[in-house]
Amino acid sequence: MEYELATRVAKLRPSGIRKVMALAAAREAKGLRTYHLEVGQPDFPTPTAITEALKERLSDMPGYTPNLGMPSLRSRVAALVQSKTDIKTAADQIGITTGAVNALAMSILATISPGDEVLVPDPGWPNYESAITLAGGIPVPYRLDPRKEFLIDLNDLETRITHRTRMLMINFPGNPTGGVADAEHLKAISRIADRHNLLILSDEIYSDFVFEGGHTSMREIHDPAKTIIVSGVSKTYAMTGWRIGWLIAEPEIVAAVGALAEPLTSCPCTASQISAELALDLDQSDLDVMRETFRRRASIASDILNEAGLLMTVPKGAFYVMADISRTGLDSDVYVARLLDDTGVAAAPGSTFGQTTRQQIRFSIATSDADVREACTLFVKHVNTLAGANP
Amino acid sequence: MEYELATRVAKLRPSGIRKVMALAAAREAKGLRTYHLEVGQPDFPTPTAITEALKERLSDMPGYTPNLGMPSLRSRVAALVQSKTDIKTAADQIGITTGAVNALAMSILATISPGDEVLVPDPGWPNYESAITLAGGIPVPYRLDPRKEFLIDLNDLETRITHRTRMLMINFPGNPTGGVADAEHLKAISRIADRHNLLILSDEIYSDFVFEGGHTSMREIHDPAKTIIVSGVSKTYAMTGWRIGWLIAEPEIVAAVGALAEPLTSCPCTASQISAELALDLDQSDLDVMRETFRRRASIASDILNEAGLLMTVPKGAFYVMADISRTGLDSDVYVARLLDDTGVAAAPGSTFGQTTRQQIRFSIATSDADVREACTLFVKHVNTLAGANP
Repeated sequence: MEYELATRVAKLRPSGIRKVMALAAAREAKGLRTYHLEVGQPDFPTPTAITEALKERLSDMPGYTPNLGMPSLRSRVAALVQSKTDIKTAADQIGITTGAVNALAMSILATISPGDEVLVPDPGWPNYESAITLAGGIPVPYRLDPRKEFLIDLNDLETRITHRTRMLMINFPGNPTGGVADAEHLKAISRIADRHNLLILSDEIYSDFVFEGGHTSMREIHDPAKTIIVSGVSKTYAMTGWRIGWLIAEPEIVAAVGALAEPLTSCPCTASQISAELALDLDQSDLDVMRETFRRRASIASDILNEAGLLMTVPKGAFYVMADISRTGLDSDVYVARLLDDTGVAAAPGSTFGQTTRQQIRFSIATSDADVREACTLFVKHVNTLAGANP
Repeated sequence: MEYELATRVAKLRPSGIRKVMALAAAREAKGLRTYHLEVGQPDFPTPTAITEALKERLSDMPGYTPNLGMPSLRSRVAALVQSKTDIKTAADQIGITTGAVNALAMSILATISPGDEVLVPDPGWPNYESAITLAGGIPVPYRLDPRKEFLIDLNDLETRITHRTRMLMINFPGNPTGGVADAEHLKAISRIADRHNLLILSDEIYSDFVFEGGHTSMREIHDPAKTIIVSGVSKTYAMTGWRIGWLIAEPEIVAAVGALAEPLTSCPCTASQISAELALDLDQSDLDVMRETFRRRASIASDILNEAGLLMTVPKGAFYVMADISRTGLDSDVYVARLLDDTGVAAAPGSTFGQTTRQQIRFSIATSDADVREACTLFVKHVNTLAGANP
C-alpha cells in the first residue's frame, strides 16, 4: 500500500467471533450442515407489531435528529429506567446512540483520557478493550471466577487498581459467561469503586434475560453520579440490525457524548429511533417468551455438557454457555476451527474474551432447541475423541 | 460533577450551526415566524418509491450485517462509482458507514496518527476539524479564495505544508461555499499532493448537485491508491435521517475502517442499507428535479444579495449561499443571533466554518422559494439598517 495506516489500527485485536462467523458462512455456502452457535444475536425476528407500526410512519419520517436522539425517545427511556430502578431519571441523563456498542465507546471517549487505566472483566466482550484502546486508555483485565458462577473475584479486582485507574467496567448478565450478579455482589463491587474513587460503567444489555428473580441494575446500588449504565433494544426486542442503544449517566457526561457524536455519527438513524419508541410501548409479553426460550435452551445445553463434565457453570442469564476444552490440550483458537471442520458446529473461542478462558469455548444458544441439543452432543463426542487421541 | 471529562471533550468546538438551530427552534416554539436557512438538509421527503419498497422488506429484515455493510450494497456502490468515473472499482474498495460524516471520521481514524497534520479548507465544515482532533491529528486550515468562487488559493495551500503533513482534505461542491472545482483545478491540487506525498480525502457528498456541466471526482484525477472519496445517500436522495454514507479507498484502508467500526458502531443500520440499495436502483429523475430546484433558489438568493452588494459569489453547486456582513461591523456569531431575533431569519455564522469567514453568514437554500426570497430580502434590509446605525 502507498500509505501507512494510523498507529491505532495495529492495536486492535481482530475478533475471534467474526473469524468463526466467516468460516461458518464459507462452510454453509458449500452446502455443508452448519450449527450457528457463534453469534450473539437472538434468532427471533423483530416483533411484527413494531414493523407494522413503523410502516405507518415511513412516509413522514423526519431527517436528522439532535445528536443525542429524539427528545421523545430520551424521555421514554428515562421513564422506563425510573420505573425499573425506582431511581429518579430525567431525559437529560439519557443519550441515544447507534447501538449499545456505540454507547459503550462514546461513554469511554467522553471520560477516559490517554493513559487512564480501565478495569475490564476477563473473560469479557473484546470490544471493551478495543474501545478503551481507541480512547488511548489502558485496559486492565480482572478475573471472573468460574468456580463462583463467573462472579467477580473481588480480591483479584482490588489488586489491579493503581493510582491511574479511573473506571471499572462490569457486565451482568455476562457475555460470554451467563453470570448474573445479585444486589449483594453489586454492593461489594460498589464499595471497592467507592474506596478507590472509580467511575462504574455497567453494560446491562442482557438485563431482560435474567432467568430467575429479575435484574438488579448498578444504578440502584452505586451513586448514580458515579455510574454509567449502557443498554438498548438490540437483544431485548430482537432489533440488532436497527442499531439503537443508550447510556444513562450524569447530564454532563451525556452532553459530552452528544458533542463527540457530532463528528462521529451526528445522530442515530431516525427510523430506528421511531422503531425503538414503538418497541418500548409494546405489550411486553413477547419478551417473556424470549426469556423462557433462552432459559430452556440454557438448561438443554447445560445438562448435556454437565453430564460429560464439560460445563463451566450453569448460566443464570443472557444466552451463552461456556464449555471446558482443556482435556483436548488445544488452545480455543485452534479448537473452534477443528470443531467446525469436523462437526459443523460453530462456537466462539474463549481466547477472544481474555486470557483466563483460552481453554474454553462459548456457545450462543440463540438458535433452535434441536440445534442446541445436537451441537452440544456433537461437541461432547468431538472433545472426547480428541482427548482420547491426545491423552 | 463528580468526575472530570476526558481531555478530548474540551478540544471540540461547539457547532455554531447547532446553536442557531436550537435558538430557531425555541423561537418557533413561541409561535413566532421563523425562516429556516440554517441547516444543511434537503427540504424534500425521502422519495416514496424508496419507503414503499422498504415496507415490503420490513417483516424479513436481517440482523447485524458485516462491519463494512452488506456485500450487495458494497457491490452496488462500486458499480455506481465505476460507471460515473470510468475508474475500475471493486466492492472491497467500498466501506458502508453510518452516514457520510462517519465515513469521514473513520477514514481519518484509519490513516491519521497523533501529531499528523491534515490540511482543511477555510471556510469548511467544522466536523473536519473535530474528527482530526479526535484522531490526535492537527488540523491546518488553508484558504479558499472568495474572489475566485471559493476555489483553493494554491499558493496559500503550499505554504501550509510541512514534513508532518499527511493528508489534504478537499470539498467540492463545497459547504459552506457552493464552490465547484473543474478538472483543471483538481489537477493543480493533485500535483501539489503528489509533490508532497499527501493522501487526498475528498468529501463529495454534494456531487449530485452541480448546477452546470456535471461533477468531476478526484478519483478521476488523482492516483486512486492515494485518494479517499466520501459520499452517501443523505443529500442526493433526501435521506439524511437514514445515516448511510460510504468511503471509496484502497482495500487496506477500507479493511482498517471495518476493524475500527467493530467497537464504535459494529455496522450501519440494516434497514437503512436496504433503503440505500433501493435508492440507488431508483429511476434517477427525482434527482434532476432536486438539482433544478436548488439551482433556481441559488439564483433567487444570489440576485437579491448581489443587487445589495452582499453576495460573496454565485454558488455553482450544493445548496448554500454566502453573504457578506462586514458592513455591520459585527462578528457573525453575534450577528446571526441578532438577525434571528430581529427578523426570524435563521442562518449559520461564518465563524463556525473558519477564520476567513468571520464576517460572512451561510444561507442554506433547502427551504421554499418564497422563504428564500423573503429571508434574503429581510436580511438585506437588516444589514443596511445596522450599517446605517453603526457607520
